[in-house]
Amino acid sequence: MKNIFLLGASGSIGKQVIDILKMYPEKYNLKAVSVGENIDYLKQILREFNVEFASVKNKEDLLELEKEFPHINFGYGDDGLIQVATYSNENGVVINAVVGMVGLIPTIEAIKKRRDILLANKETLVVGGTIITKLVKEYQVNLIPIDSEHSAIFQALNGENKNNIKRIILTSSGGSFRDLTREELKNVTLQDALQHPNWNMGAKITIDSATMANKGLEVIEAHFLFGVNYDQIETVLHPESIVHSMVEFVDHSTIMQASFPDMRIPIAYALSYPDRYPTNISRPMDFSKSFNLTFKPMDFNRYPLLKLAYQVGKVGGIMPVVYNASNEVANELFRKGKISFLAIEDIVFDAVNNTSNILNPTLEEILAIDKQVRQKIYQKYEVI
Amino acid sequence: MKNIFLLGASGSIGKQVIDILKMYPEKYNLKAVSVGENIDYLKQILREFNVEFASVKNKEDLLELEKEFPHINFGYGDDGLIQVATYSNENGVVINAVVGMVGLIPTIEAIKKRRDILLANKETLVVGGTIITKLVKEYQVNLIPIDSEHSAIFQALNGENKNNIKRIILTSSGGSFRDLTREELKNVTLQDALQHPNWNMGAKITIDSATMANKGLEVIEAHFLFGVNYDQIETVLHPESIVHSMVEFVDHSTIMQASFPDMRIPIAYALSYPDRYPTNISRPMDFSKSFNLTFKPMDFNRYPLLKLAYQVGKVGGIMPVVYNASNEVANELFRKGKISFLAIEDIVFDAVNNTSNILNPTLEEILAIDKQVRQKIYQKYEVI
Repeated sequence: MKNIFLLGASGSIGKQVIDILKMYPEKYNLKAVSVGENIDYLKQILREFNVEFASVKNKEDLLELEKEFPHINFGYGDDGLIQVATYSNENGVVINAVVGMVGLIPTIEAIKKRRDILLANKETLVVGGTIITKLVKEYQVNLIPIDSEHSAIFQALNGENKNNIKRIILTSSGGSFRDLTREELKNVTLQDALQHPNWNMGAKITIDSATMANKGLEVIEAHFLFGVNYDQIETVLHPESIVHSMVEFVDHSTIMQASFPDMRIPIAYALSYPDRYPTNISRPMDFSKSFNLTFKPMDFNRYPLLKLAYQVGKVGGIMPVVYNASNEVANELFRKGKISFLAIEDIVFDAVNNTSNILNPTLEEILAIDKQVRQKIYQKYEVI
Repeated sequence: MKNIFLLGASGSIGKQVIDILKMYPEKYNLKAVSVGENIDYLKQILREFNVEFASVKNKEDLLELEKEFPHINFGYGDDGLIQVATYSNENGVVINAVVGMVGLIPTIEAIKKRRDILLANKETLVVGGTIITKLVKEYQVNLIPIDSEHSAIFQALNGENKNNIKRIILTSSGGSFRDLTREELKNVTLQDALQHPNWNMGAKITIDSATMANKGLEVIEAHFLFGVNYDQIETVLHPESIVHSMVEFVDHSTIMQASFPDMRIPIAYALSYPDRYPTNISRPMDFSKSFNLTFKPMDFNRYPLLKLAYQVGKVGGIMPVVYNASNEVANELFRKGKISFLAIEDIVFDAVNNTSNILNPTLEEILAIDKQVRQKIYQKYEVI
């Protein structure tokens, strides 16, 4: 039995993690779990699993939960997340499936407990990449990616020497608006943006896919996860979302990982790694029918936030934090109907262009700049 | 320095092995080598490498060679092949790049010397699979495939547990006549058959690709190499020959290996395994241009020799020997202009249908049946 400490159980990834845990009750033991405000979903989890500790976003929700589940301990807020990640002294893995950079500190604390991290929260690496990769080495834990692209690369690197990587090729569906020109993007709505052609994902990441900020974050994440330079990371359009990414080695041999687009496949792999368990998830690929896999060059003029991600990644220091914080807020403002789709790009470019870099930032500096960038945007749009 | 003992240096694969050895003079040391009748090419090799032992097909060629290269020892014929494979007591790997089942005995002897085998000669496994896989286990050597499909599977299995294989998917370009109907196959010529759409290979294998006997032999080879049932081996048409084969695992994740079609890539990989060496072989894949990878279901009615290969593979015993021997002779007769293209199929079906099976054949029985099948066909066509 592998003990599981799950951050973000009620999000899109978290719910799919729960699906997998249900499929293999003899393999996994969910010991601690966090949700945000979805108390009903937490209750379902607490009824189905032998959870010992649970945390929620708001203190107000505790009374009701403690009454209904008197044998379970509860926490709340940022501290609650840390408590979930570090709960008990038994071995186990932490699944970081929260959205946004709130996942950073709990991940750091879990690494210090020598727990492997199954990472769906790319912001953790984008803002804290230098700190996290140093800690991962120091505490000798595994950092196993859950998102489909990095899981594909991780699988392609199985049994391989990382020094033999020539380049990593991240695939991208192109997002909800891949068939629109930039001119046509001016009047798109939130409803349009939420229609991803291939994947069923959360709202934040679906919008990030449409702006290609998601691929930008993935480029930075790949840099830290696999120790490759930005010049070794390519992005390519692949409308079918079957090949989830590739690694080309120094001998010009390329390894691709493929499946139907279903996040439960990389989630199940991260959980079973280095083994693989039989599953009924999704369909296997179907070779009884003809099909095409299409690859098209990435258009950086069409997706300026992707181009910018390479630039902030190469510059390093505090700039990826600025990119991520401004994107998180802009994404939120768009989802709340406060700004237009193209204003997301304007906000991120504005933040990056108007923040001075700090090289080798401390954790405190990262948190401070993150807060400062967010407040400035909120103030400008008079949200707070 | 890795010592190399190379069987079949003047064939298509052998010459490409020589190319690779020249690229990495600091990595590989060619100690012993065999050719057939291409004495001029052998002389080139002997001038460029510090070969200690060389073998040729015919004794008549020895005098001239011994005169020009008095410091080198020479052998000839079937014994010469064994001498090359077992030369010296130093460590090293044997590359079996001969064509046809003449590669079987030298491979057995090399395994008994605990040498890893780099296998381009699929007939060795098709006819001697049971014997070879048993010896490989007993002497704890590696059997590393060189042909592109099995190299792809071997690479996809890097770091994986073979028990987690759900199925192996062998890709096939469809061969020279993939756009012709069976009716149109009646009048095709040898010249037509030798025009493979993607690969630059030897004549025997190019004809085998057109009849799909090559894929049939590969199915049987995959069964022995990777320990999978025939029901777990699929074949799919992939006209571009970019994805060289795939492994689907029990978790519905599929790993594909891809590159431009260039045999030197799998050859270089087999030599450097488990490492990979930087190379200028071929081009890397080009993502700056749009491209498609096409997959189509295999048509077993179009390619009856592939269907037959599954059948003889499942039946086992001596039947793969009969399939291989009759196909080798039929292929040769077609290349010599003695029979039509479609007569290749007739000869193989006739041999398989008119030979009684022997389960668990000994090496002697394998050699006897192989000889008997060949003689019967030669007699019928009055070639000898």
